[in-house]
This record gives sequence, structure tokens and C-alpha cells, in this order.
Amino acid sequence: MEVAVPDQVPAQALALRSLVTASQTVELALAEVSVPAPGPHEVVVRVEAAPVNPSDLGLLFAGADLSQVTAAGTPSRPVVTAPLPAGAARAAAARVGQSLPAGNEGAGTVVAAGASDAAQALLGKLVAVAGGGMYAQYRRVPAAACLELPAGATAADGAASFVNPMTALGMVATMRREGHTALVHTAAASNLGQMLNRLCIEDQIPLVSIVRSAAQAELLRAAGARWVCDSTAATFRADLTEALAETRATIAFDAIGGGRMASDILNAMEAAISAGAEFSRYGSAVHKQVYIYGSLDRGPTELTRGFGLAWGVGGWLLTPFLRQAGPEEVARMRQRVAAGLTTTFASRYTGEVTLAGALSVDAIAVYGRQATGQKYLITPNA
Amino acid sequence: MEVAVPDQVPAQALALRSLVTASQTVELALAEVSVPAPGPHEVVVRVEAAPVNPSDLGLLFAGADLSQVTAAGTPSRPVVTAPLPAGAARAAAARVGQSLPAGNEGAGTVVAAGASDAAQALLGKLVAVAGGGMYAQYRRVPAAACLELPAGATAADGAASFVNPMTALGMVATMRREGHTALVHTAAASNLGQMLNRLCIEDQIPLVSIVRSAAQAELLRAAGARWVCDSTAATFRADLTEALAETRATIAFDAIGGGRMASDILNAMEAAISAGAEFSRYGSAVHKQVYIYGSLDRGPTELTRGFGLAWGVGGWLLTPFLRQAGPEEVARMRQRVAAGLTTTFASRYTGEVTLAGALSVDAIAVYGRQATGQKYLITPNA
Repeated sequence: MEVAVPDQVPAQALALRSLVTASQTVELALAEVSVPAPGPHEVVVRVEAAPVNPSDLGLLFAGADLSQVTAAGTPSRPVVTAPLPAGAARAAAARVGQSLPAGNEGAGTVVAAGASDAAQALLGKLVAVAGGGMYAQYRRVPAAACLELPAGATAADGAASFVNPMTALGMVATMRREGHTALVHTAAASNLGQMLNRLCIEDQIPLVSIVRSAAQAELLRAAGARWVCDSTAATFRADLTEALAETRATIAFDAIGGGRMASDILNAMEAAISAGAEFSRYGSAVHKQVYIYGSLDRGPTELTRGFGLAWGVGGWLLTPFLRQAGPEEVARMRQRVAAGLTTTFASRYTGEVTLAGALSVDAIAVYGRQATGQKYLITPNA
Repeated sequence: MEVAVPDQVPAQALALRSLVTASQTVELALAEVSVPAPGPHEVVVRVEAAPVNPSDLGLLFAGADLSQVTAAGTPSRPVVTAPLPAGAARAAAARVGQSLPAGNEGAGTVVAAGASDAAQALLGKLVAVAGGGMYAQYRRVPAAACLELPAGATAADGAASFVNPMTALGMVATMRREGHTALVHTAAASNLGQMLNRLCIEDQIPLVSIVRSAAQAELLRAAGARWVCDSTAATFRADLTEALAETRATIAFDAIGGGRMASDILNAMEAAISAGAEFSRYGSAVHKQVYIYGSLDRGPTELTRGFGLAWGVGGWLLTPFLRQAGPEEVARMRQRVAAGLTTTFASRYTGEVTLAGALSVDAIAVYGRQATGQKYLITPNA
């Protein structure tokens, strides 16, 4: 038995799609797609809010040159295209010709549910889902993938309840699992960085926040951050070394990726560890780790190896972390997020756009830049 | 009761010392030092052969500019000095004014032994020791640190029985421990590289050897290497990707450190893994690892991150590996080395020098360059 709310669920609805073409461009458009009926253990969610996270941009734009976006189509069915630089085109070769849905996460109302008890229990409820393809008016997902929002929470409150909160919790869990007791975060004035700051204050974990302006430093300090280093300050390396000496942080999560940030952090960690220690020909024996989880700078990562031989730099991604953590740990993490949805794990938005609005050249100029503090929310049914 | 062979053990003997001065130079000289009497569990070894390994050069020269070596002293008591570039001087700040012994390993005859049974059992025996300070005529070491050489082996055979053999075995053990089934090695025509090639043939482990000339490629192929890639060939990246596709190697040990080698390997691994696979927005989920264990190129490591997020680059050092492996595993490894001392684990030398000879400008010009295939043996008592 399938139970739906027929007048609420249209047969067709809009979904945002990203297509890399053989002529090395990316094309974003709205597709009219069928809204599928739920299977026994599935529900259909009317998506009311979905954030544009930095982690959505790779799939959306495939590394295109966003200074060359061109618009076509109609106001209600816009089509935007942008050319891919050669490197981006090579990296996107495997997706040429595939119209891909986008949007990692979002929240909305369950408007149809399959016959199972678990699915039925969600009917009419406001849920958050990290199912991919959330930049759509309707989305069919497994009932088990839905997190029911606590009473009083809105779809906007719950829209970003997965990627950033689970990433912040995942960073802290990785820190603990690998034997560190304090951590460093770059691009730390971001929504994620502010969230991590609140989480670390709550859990009494020393956090060194690296930001890229005095204003961002001020913002974090006002939010209670104790160790904030501004990478544009002339004293940055000394400030960082001092903060690392105080916190003994030996693990960092870096959203920048390119350039010398990872190298600067490792060298400052080594300087903080070695201060006053006796000479060791291979550097300190303390393992120093930087995980690169973002790519704000897509250029090469440059490591000036003055930090001995006990070090690692590597990629970090939420999905494999969650797979390793296992379902019980993930469930505990999600419950913690639900409890702190409007406090520790709250996101703030600087703009709201419809699906069509997300495809305007002006909106892309803002959210495509990944400027710290500029976060958009897409409201597909507004 | 201490048993010695008095007429064989002088009260004073020569030892090579390295000193970084406050005026940013390194000074190498021979010091006349007391030969200490062994404690109950110790022996005194007359050092007959000690190799100059790449891993000895850092302590010997402290990163000095070897194109500016100057000689002084007398033929039997030479003193050589070389200036330290600013970066090297900073890195060596903690050893300024300390006269440091050098030479990681060597072999020789036990000429005095403490009262314990273990020490006494070694009297008169030819042993290999990795005790540090082996560029000396006599060296007091714990009896437990000595590996008795098998019958028929000479001191020259046993001199390099620790660093390179244990490193080769350690690389293979690390490969297995981290779940890989094949490996990549750079600067692979080195003594270590040739040894690793023999070991991998013996253990049937696919090995991709990266070398820096056609002649080196030929040398390895003649020694039975199946996958050899010449980084100076125009087809290098394609050759490497093909070798990685065939071997499925996802771990590499890199002696070069600086430049793009680690990056090239990771990108080629990713290309080999992704060939024919469907598009994945974050790259392959297969973890790709490069360990940097040497610094033939002291310049920055440049990573062009086209290899997804499942990757790591890190330092690798024998000592912490052995500590983690534990004494039983290390004992098994040493027994395997002893059994293969003149076959799998044999080293070849292109020159033999006395302690004074090691401090000649000509010799330093050869062994200080770390040129592949140029390996010197110091014979302190010749």
C-alpha cells in the first residue's frame, strides 16, 4: 500500500541539472522531471530549503571559469554556461554528456510515503536529508536517510544539518582517533569554521583558527575564539607558532589546499614542538598532520619540508569518515546535531534564491566565489 | 671480570667528528678520543668497514654548500670546512658547538668484551653494528646491538647490513601493513633500489622502479626488473600510468622529496585507477600514498592535486618503523638480512677510503653528491 497526498505531489517538477559538454563548457539548467512514487521504504520530500555549500560547487560548476558565465533561456527556465579551463576539462572528462543532479543536502516536508511503518511515520513531517540531488522541487529518498527535525525548527534551520555539522564533528572525532588533543582550522571564519569554534568551546578543545582578514579575526574573537591567527598579518608565522606552542595542536584541517598554508602550519608546528628541545637530526619525533578537505586555492600545494620526517598531508572527505565511523556512531552524531540545530550547529545565510534565481549571473557571482561569510539558501518551492 | 685483548686495544684512537660553528660553517675533523672499557653487557668493536649512506650525509654536512669545501690541517689530520646556506644554518641551530660523531653503521672485530655471557660470546667475532658513531677506529656498543656475521662474510660484506636492508624490508612491511600489494620506488638505481628490486623479485611483489636515465633503466632491467620508468623520457607519465595500471601499485617510497615526483606518482595512480571507471566527483575512493624518505632534491614538494581526496603524502623514517614493528619482528628481519648478506642484501662500493681519506676534498666531491651508484666505504683501521 502506498500512501501519498496526491494533490500535493505533481507528476512533474523542476530539478537543477549540471552538464559538462564535449565542447568543454558546463551548462546549468532546470529540467522538468517525473516525481517518482515512493517504494515501501521510501518517502517523497517537497524540498523547501537547500544550502549552497562549498562542497556543492565542484559538481555544479566542474571547475569552470566563473568570470565567463553567460546567460540564456527565459526568466523561469534560465540556462547558464561557462567554459572549462583545460585542467578542469581533463578532470571532468568522465562526466561529459551526463546531466547530473546537484545539491548535497536540504530540508522539507514529507508529502508521500511508502507502506512501511518507518516511511509512514514520516508523512507530513519536516525532515532533513543528505541525499544528493536536493536542488529540486521534489526528491524521493529512503526513509532511513531522513532526520526528523525537532519541534519548532524550520526547513531553513534544518537545511544544512548534515554536511557542515557532520564535518565539524568528524574533524573533532578524527583529531581524537589519531591521538591529538587540539586542532587547527583554516578559512576559519566560514560557516563551518564558526560552527567548529562553537563545538570546540562546548567540548573544551583548544582550536587555532586561521583567517584571512582582521575583520574575520574580530568576528571569531567576538564568538569566543581564543587563538585566532590572521594570515595577512606581518606577524602571522610568529603568531601561529605561539598559538601552537600554547595549544600543542598537531593536526590541522585546511580548506585552502593550494599554496603554502599546509607547509606553514607544519613548519610552525615543528618550531613550536622543537622550541627548547635538544638537537635531533631528523627533526621532532612528534607526528604532525594536515588534512586538506577543500580547495579554495586550486593551485599546487607547496611543501617546504623543514618539519622533520614525522609528518603527513592528505585528503579528508566526510563520506569515507562516516563509513569508517559506522552507523551507530553516525546516529549519535546526528542526534547531537538535531539537539543543537539552532545553537551550536546553526548556519547563517546571506541570500535566498529560487531554483531559477540560483541560475542568475548575479547570484553565481556571489555564491560561486566561495567568499567567506557569503552563503546562499535555495528555496525550490518558494 | 672484564676480558680484553690488551695489545689490540689502544687507549686512544681516531674518530671522525662534525661540528657546526656559530659562524655558520660545518667543520669535519678527526679527534683523538679515549677508547672506553666495556661494561658487563658491552663490547668494543674495532671498526673495519663503515659505509657512507645518503642518511649519513645530513649529520656529516648539515646541509652545507659542498661546492665550497675548503681543506686545512695535515694529511693525517685533515680538517675540512664548508659554509651553511641560511636555511641549513637555521635547521642546524640546535647543534651549534656540539662535536658530533657520525656513521650510522659498520662492521668489525670484537676486541674487548664485558663479563656477561652474551658479551663474552662475541669476543674475536666479526659483527655488524648500527650504533651511530661508526666512523671511528674503535667503538663501544651494547652486545645486544651486534649482529654476528655468517661464516665467510667479510667486514665489507657486513658493513651496510642494517640501514639499506632494513629500509628495503621496512618498505615492503609498510606496504603490506597498509593494505597495498605492489609498490613504487624512486631513485631506484641506487644501492637501496637495486636491493629492493632483488627483494621484490624474491617475494614476488610487483615493483615499479623510477630512474633518472636510460642507463639506469638498463641496469635495473638487466637485474630482472619488469617495470622500470625513466623520468627523463618524453613518455614518462604515460609509461608510469601504464606500469601502475598493470601492477595496481598504490604506495610509493620517494627518495627525491622536492619537485613534482610525488605529485606525478599520485596523479598517475589516480589515472590508472580511474581508467574506464565511471565519473566520481571526488575522484577515486582508493587511497594513494607516497612516503618521502629522502631529500635528494631539497626544494619544495609541489602537489598538483588532480588525484581526488583519498591520498596521503608523508615522511617515512626507519627508526620509528622499527620501534613500531617491535623487537621480535626486527630480530626476524635481521636474520633474513644475515642469510642474504652476499646476495639479496649485498651492497657494492665504488671507492674505499680511510678516515683521513674521507675528509679529502676529492672524496667529498664524489660521496657528498649522492650520485646514484657512487657509494664509498670507510676503512678506519686500514
